[in-house]
Amino acid sequence: MVVPEPGLPDRVTIYEVGPRDGLQNEKTVVPLDVKAAFVRRLVAAGLPVVEATSFVHPRWVPQLADAAELVEELAEGPTFPHPVLVPNERGLHRALEAGCAHVAVFASATETFAARNLNSTVADQMTMFAPVVRRALDAGADVRAYVSMCFGDPWEGPVDPDAVVRVGCELLELGATQLSLGDTIGVGTAGQVGDLVRRFGAAGVGADRLALHFHDTYGQALTNVHAALQAGVTTFDASAGGLGGCPYARSATGNLATEDLVWFLTGLGIGHGVDLDALVATSTWMAERLGKTPASAVVRALGGA
Amino acid sequence: MVVPEPGLPDRVTIYEVGPRDGLQNEKTVVPLDVKAAFVRRLVAAGLPVVEATSFVHPRWVPQLADAAELVEELAEGPTFPHPVLVPNERGLHRALEAGCAHVAVFASATETFAARNLNSTVADQMTMFAPVVRRALDAGADVRAYVSMCFGDPWEGPVDPDAVVRVGCELLELGATQLSLGDTIGVGTAGQVGDLVRRFGAAGVGADRLALHFHDTYGQALTNVHAALQAGVTTFDASAGGLGGCPYARSATGNLATEDLVWFLTGLGIGHGVDLDALVATSTWMAERLGKTPASAVVRALGGA
Repeated sequence: MVVPEPGLPDRVTIYEVGPRDGLQNEKTVVPLDVKAAFVRRLVAAGLPVVEATSFVHPRWVPQLADAAELVEELAEGPTFPHPVLVPNERGLHRALEAGCAHVAVFASATETFAARNLNSTVADQMTMFAPVVRRALDAGADVRAYVSMCFGDPWEGPVDPDAVVRVGCELLELGATQLSLGDTIGVGTAGQVGDLVRRFGAAGVGADRLALHFHDTYGQALTNVHAALQAGVTTFDASAGGLGGCPYARSATGNLATEDLVWFLTGLGIGHGVDLDALVATSTWMAERLGKTPASAVVRALGGA
Repeated sequence: MVVPEPGLPDRVTIYEVGPRDGLQNEKTVVPLDVKAAFVRRLVAAGLPVVEATSFVHPRWVPQLADAAELVEELAEGPTFPHPVLVPNERGLHRALEAGCAHVAVFASATETFAARNLNSTVADQMTMFAPVVRRALDAGADVRAYVSMCFGDPWEGPVDPDAVVRVGCELLELGATQLSLGDTIGVGTAGQVGDLVRRFGAAGVGADRLALHFHDTYGQALTNVHAALQAGVTTFDASAGGLGGCPYARSATGNLATEDLVWFLTGLGIGHGVDLDALVATSTWMAERLGKTPASAVVRALGGA
């Protein structure tokens, strides 16, 4: 039964990360044709944005070593319609050569994760991203910037929200089009979410430039979406079937499942454009290929697995 | 990191249902000494209310056939401090004989569930509960009334919220002290929750007389708690480790896990009195005895299982 909540938006954009953030964290390496079918089925299910792959070095993420081939397989025109992750200039070069017009970079809000994931510091990562963003914009691409560890860090504990705002603002100053604020280890709670969005607002960054990226490690992802919606955010990352764990948390529970988000939004009468049955069928099909049970409560409840 | 959300209460009461609602829905029958240790450990972990068992006929719920023995084992004075479920007059008689001073009845908001679970109708169940409530009150006991299927019913689909308000008001008129509104199959979403609490308010029933009882079947339990908190509710049912499935839904996911609720409340700075480490240790211990993995995301993430 649909019962709207006063003050929430009429419509949100779901930014599907299953083929990239999901598959890069699964142990099984999925064949190219299955990846292509996965992206096509997600698009057919109504997902407006599907991050297709990552042009990361195959040594680091062998699961996505076929990024260029996947883009070629899925391409239907001169420019590739789906966003892709680019870790650095070399990755951007490969993405642009493949015809990509929407790219994303992956920054860190904390020093320890910057050191471990980027071999850099919070300050120096901007030096690394500056030419990537500039060259992408020069080539006519838009740039999403992920900010990871926005609420907690497995080594440092709680994260100063003002440090997150500083990193986010610097990425926007470089030219990033949208920030995706990630609770990479899933420790954040609702009060922190509203607070962080308001701090960005006070720094001149409206909620329309923010996406929120939650992990369900501690069961908090959907109530964090609720808090973000109430703070005015209208773009949310999610992963079909809850695909993908987090390599930096002990639990197997990873990304917020797109189906659980869709169920929540539907109940509130918030438009999303997704055909839930088609999505559940897609996630079930993908889970079978990975030999696992979907993490999504909705997929399990609807008997998809 | 604690970040309060403006307008939320400073403190809530967690009504722990693991030993009753949890264990009655587990296939394994737990020995008496393990049940007693479970209740004692939950109390020691700081849970202010622990529903200990149900005086239901052993034929229907063999898992709880030892209700009287458990109460005797746990008793420390003339009256038993923990609430127990009583399905009917016979159950109440046994509970009062055992020294119980806090009892709960279990009503249905829908006709189909009233027929299947109570062999009654929505109207006739009041005839059944009237002497139970009266006799309990005469004996000095207080009476909680569960209302099941408040948001959706597996046979009837969406449930009319005004029908829920009617059933709840009738139970309060009989003398019930508190209502526990149950989303028995876990299909409700945040807008429905706030709406139902407001409809009770319009009928003269304040949020202080309501408890909310959510199932996580579709991943919505915690965001439903969030909506209920925002509507003024301060009592929430939860089950240690997420014990207990729902026999009327296809998924294995049942009650909201107490640990996930505690994590959420702690993050918002809302007092609850529970020692999370002691609770996680208790749920992990209980899960080992049941030979299963805890359903709680927090228990899994903290490495308790």
